Amino acid sequence: MPRASVREQIVEAAFEQFHRHGYNACGVKLITDSAKVPKGSFYNHFESKEALALVVMDRYGETRHLDRLRTPRTAPLARLRAHFEALARDIVDVGYERGCVFGNFSTEAADHIPAIRTAVDAAFGHWAAALAATIREAQADGSVTTGQSPEVLARFLLNAWEGAIVGERATKDGSSFAAFFAVAFEVVLR
Amino acid sequence: MPRASVREQIVEAAFEQFHRHGYNACGVKLITDSAKVPKGSFYNHFESKEALALVVMDRYGETRHLDRLRTPRTAPLARLRAHFEALARDIVDVGYERGCVFGNFSTEAADHIPAIRTAVDAAFGHWAAALAATIREAQADGSVTTGQSPEVLARFLLNAWEGAIVGERATKDGSSFAAFFAVAFEVVLR
Repeated sequence: MPRASVREQIVEAAFEQFHRHGYNACGVKLITDSAKVPKGSFYNHFESKEALALVVMDRYGETRHLDRLRTPRTAPLARLRAHFEALARDIVDVGYERGCVFGNFSTEAADHIPAIRTAVDAAFGHWAAALAATIREAQADGSVTTGQSPEVLARFLLNAWEGAIVGERATKDGSSFAAFFAVAFEVVLR
Repeated sequence: MPRASVREQIVEAAFEQFHRHGYNACGVKLITDSAKVPKGSFYNHFESKEALALVVMDRYGETRHLDRLRTPRTAPLARLRAHFEALARDIVDVGYERGCVFGNFSTEAADHIPAIRTAVDAAFGHWAAALAATIREAQADGSVTTGQSPEVLARFLLNAWEGAIVGERATKDGSSFAAFFAVAFEVVLR
């Protein structure tokens, strides 16, 4: 198998290390050590840690199971549940650690780094739009009531999910995910 | 007025700087510079940054408007709303920056520092218990239905609030707080 390019090695290492340690605790040296490339090679490929973080966010976005919201021949409410169940499994599989890269970067860096804030805002917006489209379908087929707009419900659920992740990082016992699924699917989406 | 003790100056500076920068980006030197005390004086009062963070978390907990959940002669649902409105005002007043110290520390440090994780878990648990007690009253007076336990609803709302904060740090436009109040009080607590 051909060896991945240095740039690709850096992106893959950064994907893992940013997720594990967050934005501030993950320096360029940690990334290049993890990628097994010389620290000096970093700036041949990226202008800054910030620029690399934006690449990682794009790639992370591709893993957020948005395809589950569009599974053919599946009821919209079942697609919404499958989407959040897939997100939950990713986190259960790593022992309730690491959280969500978007939430982590929003918490750690959005106040201080305008480009990170803009990218998180766009990522949450893209995700909320996909949720809202599926909620709209669920309202059209009568499985969800229409008291709140799809956009408001989508933003609420996205945030409630991000908050459940924050909760699980402290308790690491599944209680916040259980509360999310119970209230989101038995009360909010009803 | 007598000058605050060096220890108190450090705690007050840490309260502000941890909140503003998070756990990892806030070093001992930033705290002692902000407190206008010599860096060397830090270790006369605290064993470590971690030990100081635990003191800050205790003090932060005292500002979380839990008293609003116990206001006499006020309906439980109105107390729940007043509680979250007070939390929202604190964040609107600083331009949707800084977030919640508990959520920030959970995101940044709970995976890596057991004492921080334990303290965040306890803080969220204390807060969830206060919310659950008020929700139980609201279920008893018939203003909230009893389909979900007070404990599950409390944990869900606490996390949904933490997630709304994560959302606002990216958008800084009030949309996540608006979605929280609409869905929490018109759909979840009904």
